[in-house]
Amino acid sequence: MRSIVIHAARDLRIEEREVEALSPSQVRLRLASGGICGSDLHYFNHGGFGTVRLREPMILGHEVSARVEELGSEVTGLTVGQLVAVSPSRPCRHCRYCLEGLPNQCLNMRYYGSAMPFPHIQGAFREVLVAEAVQCTPADGLSAGEAAMAEPLSVALHATKRAGDLLGKTVLVTGCGPIGLLSILAARRAGAREIVAVDLTRFALDIARRVGADRVLDLKDAPDALAAFSADKGTFDILYECSGAASALAAGIGALRPRGVILQLGLGGDMALPMMAITAKELDLRGSFRFHAEFPVAVDLMRAGLVDVTPLITHQVPLEEAERGFLLANDRGRAMKVQIAFA
Amino acid sequence: MRSIVIHAARDLRIEEREVEALSPSQVRLRLASGGICGSDLHYFNHGGFGTVRLREPMILGHEVSARVEELGSEVTGLTVGQLVAVSPSRPCRHCRYCLEGLPNQCLNMRYYGSAMPFPHIQGAFREVLVAEAVQCTPADGLSAGEAAMAEPLSVALHATKRAGDLLGKTVLVTGCGPIGLLSILAARRAGAREIVAVDLTRFALDIARRVGADRVLDLKDAPDALAAFSADKGTFDILYECSGAASALAAGIGALRPRGVILQLGLGGDMALPMMAITAKELDLRGSFRFHAEFPVAVDLMRAGLVDVTPLITHQVPLEEAERGFLLANDRGRAMKVQIAFA
Amino acid sequence: MRSIVIHAARDLRIEEREVEALSPSQVRLRLASGGICGSDLHYFNHGGFGTVRLREPMILGHEVSARVEELGSEVTGLTVGQLVAVSPSRPCRHCRYCLEGLPNQCLNMRYYGSAMPFPHIQGAFREVLVAEAVQCTPADGLSAGEAAMAEPLSVALHATKRAGDLLGKTVLVTGCGPIGLLSILAARRAGAREIVAVDLTRFALDIARRVGADRVLDLKDAPDALAAFSADKGTFDILYECSGAASALAAGIGALRPRGVILQLGLGGDMALPMMAITAKELDLRGSFRFHAEFPVAVDLMRAGLVDVTPLITHQVPLEEAERGFLLANDRGRAMKVQIAFA
Amino acid sequence: MRSIVIHAARDLRIEEREVEALSPSQVRLRLASGGICGSDLHYFNHGGFGTVRLREPMILGHEVSARVEELGSEVTGLTVGQLVAVSPSRPCRHCRYCLEGLPNQCLNMRYYGSAMPFPHIQGAFREVLVAEAVQCTPADGLSAGEAAMAEPLSVALHATKRAGDLLGKTVLVTGCGPIGLLSILAARRAGAREIVAVDLTRFALDIARRVGADRVLDLKDAPDALAAFSADKGTFDILYECSGAASALAAGIGALRPRGVILQLGLGGDMALPMMAITAKELDLRGSFRFHAEFPVAVDLMRAGLVDVTPLITHQVPLEEAERGFLLANDRGRAMKVQIAFA
Repeated sequence: MRSIVIHAARDLRIEEREVEALSPSQVRLRLASGGICGSDLHYFNHGGFGTVRLREPMILGHEVSARVEELGSEVTGLTVGQLVAVSPSRPCRHCRYCLEGLPNQCLNMRYYGSAMPFPHIQGAFREVLVAEAVQCTPADGLSAGEAAMAEPLSVALHATKRAGDLLGKTVLVTGCGPIGLLSILAARRAGAREIVAVDLTRFALDIARRVGADRVLDLKDAPDALAAFSADKGTFDILYECSGAASALAAGIGALRPRGVILQLGLGGDMALPMMAITAKELDLRGSFRFHAEFPVAVDLMRAGLVDVTPLITHQVPLEEAERGFLLANDRGRAMKVQIAFA
Repeated sequence: MRSIVIHAARDLRIEEREVEALSPSQVRLRLASGGICGSDLHYFNHGGFGTVRLREPMILGHEVSARVEELGSEVTGLTVGQLVAVSPSRPCRHCRYCLEGLPNQCLNMRYYGSAMPFPHIQGAFREVLVAEAVQCTPADGLSAGEAAMAEPLSVALHATKRAGDLLGKTVLVTGCGPIGLLSILAARRAGAREIVAVDLTRFALDIARRVGADRVLDLKDAPDALAAFSADKGTFDILYECSGAASALAAGIGALRPRGVILQLGLGGDMALPMMAITAKELDLRGSFRFHAEFPVAVDLMRAGLVDVTPLITHQVPLEEAERGFLLANDRGRAMKVQIAFA
Repeated sequence: MRSIVIHAARDLRIEEREVEALSPSQVRLRLASGGICGSDLHYFNHGGFGTVRLREPMILGHEVSARVEELGSEVTGLTVGQLVAVSPSRPCRHCRYCLEGLPNQCLNMRYYGSAMPFPHIQGAFREVLVAEAVQCTPADGLSAGEAAMAEPLSVALHATKRAGDLLGKTVLVTGCGPIGLLSILAARRAGAREIVAVDLTRFALDIARRVGADRVLDLKDAPDALAAFSADKGTFDILYECSGAASALAAGIGALRPRGVILQLGLGGDMALPMMAITAKELDLRGSFRFHAEFPVAVDLMRAGLVDVTPLITHQVPLEEAERGFLLANDRGRAMKVQIAFA
Repeated sequence: MRSIVIHAARDLRIEEREVEALSPSQVRLRLASGGICGSDLHYFNHGGFGTVRLREPMILGHEVSARVEELGSEVTGLTVGQLVAVSPSRPCRHCRYCLEGLPNQCLNMRYYGSAMPFPHIQGAFREVLVAEAVQCTPADGLSAGEAAMAEPLSVALHATKRAGDLLGKTVLVTGCGPIGLLSILAARRAGAREIVAVDLTRFALDIARRVGADRVLDLKDAPDALAAFSADKGTFDILYECSGAASALAAGIGALRPRGVILQLGLGGDMALPMMAITAKELDLRGSFRFHAEFPVAVDLMRAGLVDVTPLITHQVPLEEAERGFLLANDRGRAMKVQIAFA
């Protein structure tokens, strides 16, 4: 079966791999759709990010949906032919963090398509995937593309859980890439009263509006637009920082009211923070990393029509044109989420 | 101007009252709509509830909307002619609880239409009402009836805030009167993943479905229907107990999972609780009383189309027929929210 | 080896039992001290409590310390001869609650000396006990009796964690049996500013003073003593209800301030609650059940001299006189914690 | 009466000022003791900090105790001659933050000895101080020096409240100046199980030991000492960052376990943060600013013997030698808290 393998920066290949054996607790899946994520792009563009570097060829991909092809002997609750969203998260279920209910902090995590450990954890962009049944959530009624959005939606839902109760709150989202847009959807679903989104591209802001932002601000046209929200110590209760830009974070901090919460979603490097404002306004900067229990929630919310991710899916390319898909995904002025159609 | 005055159980009169003087921080309002609440009905049916008894004639009503007729000299932010939702909550803003940010626990609260203190606090069912400007939230775009729903919606929102984060949670609502139905709306708005509602009347359950309950169970037909949710220590994360019936609470407790939260909204008398289950499952029973910051949030959520209360408003009667309205409101098999049209 | 076996109410026998085999993850222990707990007394006095009834002979006991006699082949971190506190909690580590970090809610819990499941879970009052190494916390420097207090201290610490932050808070403890007294110690350790304890016996109140209560009130002499704390909606932030008496709970609720928290520790039957006060003051009644992560914390706090439980240990009797120990433990006017010395 | 006035960097003068008039809600106080704080030192050494600069002469000081000399006509609860701790915090009690229960975020705060607003808020280092009665907490039984420690102790207590429940937690304190040492005391009082303190001076670490740190690490001798705590994603639950040094913060972050909390107490400038670790370990960086309800708690904890601040008070100098006191306070190898004796 074919898989999408990154060998080095800009060296992406479609290669044959063996199908893995099926154990009793597993299912064999035929991949339906795979979304290209920011970390996939980092491997494609730069061969890694921060101190994480490719040291051997690695199958990419962790945002996938698939159809069930065969069930392991002990598997119940899934049916052959069924569309499922596949979670890339495979915690060990035995380490101290797993037993504390923090599986996303698992000491032995095997997350699809990650070069953090060595040997690298091979990814899910392959025509046939053998996965644990517990990774699969039935996605009947969704399109393959929607089901493949469960993973990034889970990331936004997890961050939203980290913020605590959002009902009636005012929210600022800095950076309207896929995670920023999904944060808008998650914040609205969680009861946010007003959502303001900022970005530097009109294309992204237009989608922000369509997914529910009450106001959008183009910081390219009006770099100081957030200053209007800083009166009386600030306006917003919550800031989703999805830009990775220190300037956006600083402007957002100025616009947060006392005791406001900053959700830090991006995996960036060191960043200079205005500690004086954080201390004096008693802000709360919270890291958020991946997800766990949120994955089936993400699928269910989409299936119930309570979250609509379709405005984000701007492109779908066939497996044969995977590299074109990656190049498209690089173009933030034209593409939001690019997905690879495997079948 | 005419007002609706309760003198004793079943002694409801429409009487003339003087219009109050207007001070600089106040507005004079012409009432638009007034919803009949459970506590109004208690005064009407029984002359009070629990130890709270009518000791003098009292104007009823605390769920009202109105149009601005005149602004006090210091008032800004409102315009003559504008529809407003009027909060019945008037905390002192000086006592220890007000300064702790708990104005709903104010030691000197003057809440419209309450016989708890003596002299009683006169209510808002009067053609002309003089209120503090801070009690008024602009309701442009809403119907008078919707705007008058801001108060009970605030009660449900406040209870929901007491539950903490609801995103992805499963919710049980026992009792589908107005507060139960508004709890369904609030829980959905706050991100609940699945909402099950129970009641004893088909009429109420039909509205429960229309406002978003995923499943409704008629306990008259199937009294043990909740037992199906008690496997593996229980299913639901949150229980809104809106029936005031000890049997409903006990059944709900059986269906709650460990660490589940019970929101107690009704003002009932003593109730026998299954303490063994509360202790062993480590449940959390939280009282919720009125609201405060939730009032403008309620109005804004309705104005933004994020909460739709219109399925609850089953009847509107003119002021002249107020008593008929109260009798209608008593009939839980036909009426949900009955409102009095003042203008 | 000898063990203490309950056959029926008032039928307590010292019987020989076989020593269990030692598996690689286990240790063989020679029991040092075993405290008699309220549930042991229920089996002894009544053959059970609530719907839980003895259906076969059962070794009692779950508050024990022991000396390590032999290590299983995989055990590290313990040494032969060392005194350890032994946790009676044996969660499965695989069920949904274990994986959520709630092992005290384990669906397959095997807690020493419990007749809840059938076959019953045999207890720890036996001269030689084979336990998992993870159940054992080194207790060097403590007396055998202190180490055996780790279990009930853990119960009080767990309840205290359920209350959240206690620093600077005012605390009421109703009922000064061992759990009430340990709650005083736990609340003080967690930063309580003022602790008031009530009971009906002078003996218990004297120990309450010695373990740190700032004020003690004898409700036998002054049944309405708590009424003095109900002005301005109440005084206390936290109530540890350790009496199991509805009258104490009602008086305590009257003395709690708005948003106060009631910790319900006792495993009683149904109890009539003043729901009006719970709702109107927005109280929070939280069940608390056993413990988990608190067990090694309990041992460490004792070892560091940060909690001193010795005033509670009023009697120690040799194994041969176990029944006398149980009869002593029944006499709340003379005995607080009675322990059985096994070696 | 004499007061200690800063005119510019290194220009400290003892000057005569008029005694203010006494209004009915106020008391006239004769100052007892005044502690020199880090911000006083900043004004003395640099004429300000960050963007806050002296623009007119300002009386310094905000850590003071005093004896009551005369009561305003409406004052109750205080007696002439009584020692009181005087809170420097004077929120307006009317702005939105005051009414939300966040008076330390008051929009109109008048905090003694602050050059943030202009005209500056004059400080409390004066022989006779007229203050609101609500600023005064009776300090009977304390020394004047201890009572003057109520303010910095309140800062540490407030930060501790921001951390939530500390019972059984492990704590790291980076920087053992007065706030670091008081954080050790506060964390221990709140139930911390193990406290590790780091600094660069032996003098400070010796006091850290005396106030209860379980381990102290001299980073001058062993700069990488914290690396030992970073295994398995880290050790500590809580980090009090009291050094203001980016290197200490970075080392502390490495030693924090997933979901750990960083309390940021210092008012520094911009600081480069390792955002990757904050995100991936889902840390929580919380600003903490001044205090409010903690002030009387601080006094009560000292009076009850539950917190002992005396090891911090290394020097007391008479008013006449105020400048010597400031110079002493600059010498971190010899002095910890230097206080000025006014009477």
